[in-house]
Amino acid sequence: MTTERRSDCPISSALDIFGDRWSLLVIRDLLFKGKVRYGEFLDSEEHVSTNILADRLRTLQAHGLIDKQVDPDHGSKFIYSLTQKGRDLAPMLVEMILWSAEHDPTTAASEDFVAAARRDKRELLRRLLRPGNEQIGT
Amino acid sequence: MTTERRSDCPISSALDIFGDRWSLLVIRDLLFKGKVRYGEFLDSEEHVSTNILADRLRTLQAHGLIDKQVDPDHGSKFIYSLTQKGRDLAPMLVEMILWSAEHDPTTAASEDFVAAARRDKRELLRRLLRPGNEQIGT
Repeated sequence: MTTERRSDCPISSALDIFGDRWSLLVIRDLLFKGKVRYGEFLDSEEHVSTNILADRLRTLQAHGLIDKQVDPDHGSKFIYSLTQKGRDLAPMLVEMILWSAEHDPTTAASEDFVAAARRDKRELLRRLLRPGNEQIGT
Repeated sequence: MTTERRSDCPISSALDIFGDRWSLLVIRDLLFKGKVRYGEFLDSEEHVSTNILADRLRTLQAHGLIDKQVDPDHGSKFIYSLTQKGRDLAPMLVEMILWSAEHDPTTAASEDFVAAARRDKRELLRRLLRPGNEQIGT
């Protein structure tokens, strides 16, 4: 499950874990969109395939970025959540949103979100990572 | 060269551009390691293949993250540089380094770099992006 590390570089080793678009879209769904179930990730507009999604969920869990628990409403299904290690990717994703907002105004970055991030990133992250928060979209 | 955008999400559209490990390693080489030539990127310890490297350089240039100019020392070769759009990925890469430093102490993130980033990210970025800087490694 865990891939071999290609070098000791902190950027490269991070990319060995989540350096493909689909892993970070799962983190995005958990962090910004309040999605927690396999079917909800599958339903995202980027149309991830079932085998890629299943693989990325396993890999993210193997690396300790997400946890899964049995869904109390559906005993055969699971609910996913970010661990602290996964939540700690929030600053990186916020920088990615700001980069897109700066360089590609046609993306759907929320003006309120971008303004809040430019004003005070620390405060935005505090609000974003507050337990139970599912309100702050991008 | 430019891939079709999978959604209007600012994270997804950024990942459509650089959401693979090799693109960001080229940005890393330009930003932190002072590498500017094809052969220098090829020589990085992650061992990118020639066809992937050539493809990523073309894609990064097509999206305006890097420029290339004829190498004055070798008329048949090129020197690559980051555009402003490429340099603006520095905050995201710094967050990636901090994430690795926090969650995987076995990576080779420089203690000085991490301490400087934790103390004052804005000042670190200012020094990192200063014209002619090739001193700040990770």
